[in-house]
Amino acid sequence: MRRKRSLLVAQQLSSQINFQILKQFISANDVTNIDALVQKALAYKTDPFSDRSLGTNKRIGCLFLNPSMRTRLSTQIAAQNLGMECIIFNVGQEGWALEFEDEAIMSGNTVEHVKDAAPILGKYFDILAIRTFPSLKNREDDYSELYIKQFIKYAGIPVVSLESATLHPLQSFTDIITITEELQKSKIKKPKIVLTWAPHIKPLPQCVANSFSQWVNAWGKSDFVITHPEDYELSEEFTKGATIIQDQEEALKDADFVYVKNWSTYNDYGKVYTNDPKWQLKRKRWSLTNNAKVMHCLPVRRNVELSDAILDGKMSIVTQQASNRVWAVQAVLSEILKSNG
Amino acid sequence: MRRKRSLLVAQQLSSQINFQILKQFISANDVTNIDALVQKALAYKTDPFSDRSLGTNKRIGCLFLNPSMRTRLSTQIAAQNLGMECIIFNVGQEGWALEFEDEAIMSGNTVEHVKDAAPILGKYFDILAIRTFPSLKNREDDYSELYIKQFIKYAGIPVVSLESATLHPLQSFTDIITITEELQKSKIKKPKIVLTWAPHIKPLPQCVANSFSQWVNAWGKSDFVITHPEDYELSEEFTKGATIIQDQEEALKDADFVYVKNWSTYNDYGKVYTNDPKWQLKRKRWSLTNNAKVMHCLPVRRNVELSDAILDGKMSIVTQQASNRVWAVQAVLSEILKSNG
Amino acid sequence: MRRKRSLLVAQQLSSQINFQILKQFISANDVTNIDALVQKALAYKTDPFSDRSLGTNKRIGCLFLNPSMRTRLSTQIAAQNLGMECIIFNVGQEGWALEFEDEAIMSGNTVEHVKDAAPILGKYFDILAIRTFPSLKNREDDYSELYIKQFIKYAGIPVVSLESATLHPLQSFTDIITITEELQKSKIKKPKIVLTWAPHIKPLPQCVANSFSQWVNAWGKSDFVITHPEDYELSEEFTKGATIIQDQEEALKDADFVYVKNWSTYNDYGKVYTNDPKWQLKRKRWSLTNNAKVMHCLPVRRNVELSDAILDGKMSIVTQQASNRVWAVQAVLSEILKSNG
Repeated sequence: MRRKRSLLVAQQLSSQINFQILKQFISANDVTNIDALVQKALAYKTDPFSDRSLGTNKRIGCLFLNPSMRTRLSTQIAAQNLGMECIIFNVGQEGWALEFEDEAIMSGNTVEHVKDAAPILGKYFDILAIRTFPSLKNREDDYSELYIKQFIKYAGIPVVSLESATLHPLQSFTDIITITEELQKSKIKKPKIVLTWAPHIKPLPQCVANSFSQWVNAWGKSDFVITHPEDYELSEEFTKGATIIQDQEEALKDADFVYVKNWSTYNDYGKVYTNDPKWQLKRKRWSLTNNAKVMHCLPVRRNVELSDAILDGKMSIVTQQASNRVWAVQAVLSEILKSNG
Repeated sequence: MRRKRSLLVAQQLSSQINFQILKQFISANDVTNIDALVQKALAYKTDPFSDRSLGTNKRIGCLFLNPSMRTRLSTQIAAQNLGMECIIFNVGQEGWALEFEDEAIMSGNTVEHVKDAAPILGKYFDILAIRTFPSLKNREDDYSELYIKQFIKYAGIPVVSLESATLHPLQSFTDIITITEELQKSKIKKPKIVLTWAPHIKPLPQCVANSFSQWVNAWGKSDFVITHPEDYELSEEFTKGATIIQDQEEALKDADFVYVKNWSTYNDYGKVYTNDPKWQLKRKRWSLTNNAKVMHCLPVRRNVELSDAILDGKMSIVTQQASNRVWAVQAVLSEILKSNG
Repeated sequence: MRRKRSLLVAQQLSSQINFQILKQFISANDVTNIDALVQKALAYKTDPFSDRSLGTNKRIGCLFLNPSMRTRLSTQIAAQNLGMECIIFNVGQEGWALEFEDEAIMSGNTVEHVKDAAPILGKYFDILAIRTFPSLKNREDDYSELYIKQFIKYAGIPVVSLESATLHPLQSFTDIITITEELQKSKIKKPKIVLTWAPHIKPLPQCVANSFSQWVNAWGKSDFVITHPEDYELSEEFTKGATIIQDQEEALKDADFVYVKNWSTYNDYGKVYTNDPKWQLKRKRWSLTNNAKVMHCLPVRRNVELSDAILDGKMSIVTQQASNRVWAVQAVLSEILKSNG
């Protein structure tokens, strides 16, 4: 009986948000109604196979210019849940270096221009999903999102980002889904969400931090605080609206959610300045929070970014987060299929 | 209504060519009626899922001894369109070096003999598809097609070439399909087709050029001209019947189709002699043609083999060509399934 | 008519062994009734698609920490035969080094702890299949089966070994299936089975030899003899019950089955002591047997482990063995699906 009701709710929600047109999924800006998309994802979590035939005779191609585990598996699973064929293509490994520069004389290492490759992928597939990473060397190039924009320009079919040079929208959408799930179990009206920088052993992209900031701001239902050491300022394009504090202890006070993540510097681009181990989130600093749920996009360097005590404790919701990746991408693929006939 | 009629035509064609027995697909010699197979491919282009259950409970294994993008993706897609299971196996990457020499004492780098591997693949699959490349060092070995012939000998099931040491039949069949499509739009009765050598930065196989020559000759419906610099003669086994000219401008005159491709030398095997940039097809030389459609198997080195002006112009049909790869392999797999019960 | 009867037998067998609860498949100890599982596999060989819908909406993830050909392909095929989705994930290649040590400070090369990775795989899949290899450096670590045990501990779903540090249960189960098939064709009541060491060019794991010994002993229907040069003793944990002889000729006398396999030393762990070519099984020594069937798990180094004359002769059943891998894993997946709802 309970299952029947939740199915009914799922169907109603699904029809309510049919107005949402999703032509691509590159950033929070592509989504007109985040809450509706969250509810769609949670409906799929309740009933994964409710749209088993939506993707019949449809095909998604997943192009990985960089390796991936969760993103790859969750996308394959979501596509299968919708009855779509899913083809994985690991670009680097399979020996296919792409050229992105216009008018290039291709006498070097690149073997194919995106202008020639993308239109063909557009003929082979109904949806194209792409994973690229930043160079972390040339900020202007990375922040112009050259790679994924060229694919969008030349493929002629809906493109889904599986992480790009500056954003990771499927991760951030999952994060909002997970926060929503937790809020449904609590009495918190407007949560305090803290994004905190953490130490790491090498310079990482700003994608997850940028993207989380963009989505939390677009969602607009929290007090959002970002904390990081001096020199780790993120781009205002994404953080605008958040309170930024350099004192982690101060920031953590009364937090309901703490999102832990390392990133390299944005201003003096791609560098590691301080790597102070005090920024590792351990139990003592966590105790300053309002019994906060701790989030991380994974993979996590244990006892570098976050202590065992946190990750193995009840406050950690990282497994729940990662498993929600499936419902996030399933909701996105579903809306794209419906929006593009 | 129009769709109904084209479906009807597709069904009629499909039954008309049921007499065609396709036991393997290694070269043009395996096909008794090229035109009928072309029509079958074009019928699938009109209605990709018309044989959705032909491959039920059938399985194709695709063995890549060398990397591939278009060939791999188009084969996966075609198999799925026919309802077949398709399994990809990248040999090199997955650490499995094969021995092909008889009576070898296997105390070196090879870990498995084709005599042991192929029969098992023959048990696992209904069709075996294989991609190998030439050494470009030993012409006799390459031109004996040792690798693919050993697989045919020991697998005991139909074998499809996804490109071999000297031929690329799925590419060439696609090329004939694409030329046929273009001719249907025009009033040309007997087209002039020119295969022209182009510069490249490294020595490439002769496969695409050999195979295109073999198929165009076997098809027999064109004036076929091959043009290349001195020393780049191809094997007469494949070119016999074509007019061979060393003056590119002369060759291009009044051409209806120009196929651009680099290859290394055949006589003094696997070398790069001249690499004269004048052989790059640019707009000026193209203007000598009869408004020719320009073809290339891709990937193409822009501004080395072909200029941007050609590739981005209306004369280029390279995307159409590459997208036709799906229908070519779908027609081949379909005929093999029907021929082998 | 004959087919109908064998189908009926298959269905009866299938229902008879429904009592068998298979929660995981790591060693012979997980199976309560080997013969019943053998009959189930042989029933699938007769009718591969008899349980085509058993795996509907179920998903198996196959994690390869080491490369594989037969194991990978047979698992994909078996899963497809049961209507399951199967996702392959090659760990090494896709850049994801796992940490297995508790309380590790992860500032080195490992990027994710099994404590974080396994629970997510447990959420994504219904069954998790894993391939790992031994280090051959630290015997205690290898023989504690740390890797696969950690996955079992943290995944929370049934785990199937695709070969672990010390055992290869799907191979050994296949071997018992193949021996059973051969016995059905003969009048032999209690066969003499000989496992013989063979030379190789590098130190190999003891997995196949350990596992074959464990399964033959657990099956209990043979006279089981192991023969190897001095210093190549295996762990008594697996060999107990077998007769161990260091004279190969003596051991081979009147054998009905000879299983040929190299392994490195167990006591002075992971070494190659003697590599005497006399231990290569050739026709002359084989003639001491009772026209024995010769088995090998493949890949085999021809003319190092076994001579061409044996592998190409009627006594070799290595292809039959390898093709039975499909039915072995299909029986195991089927029982796990039934045991775990």
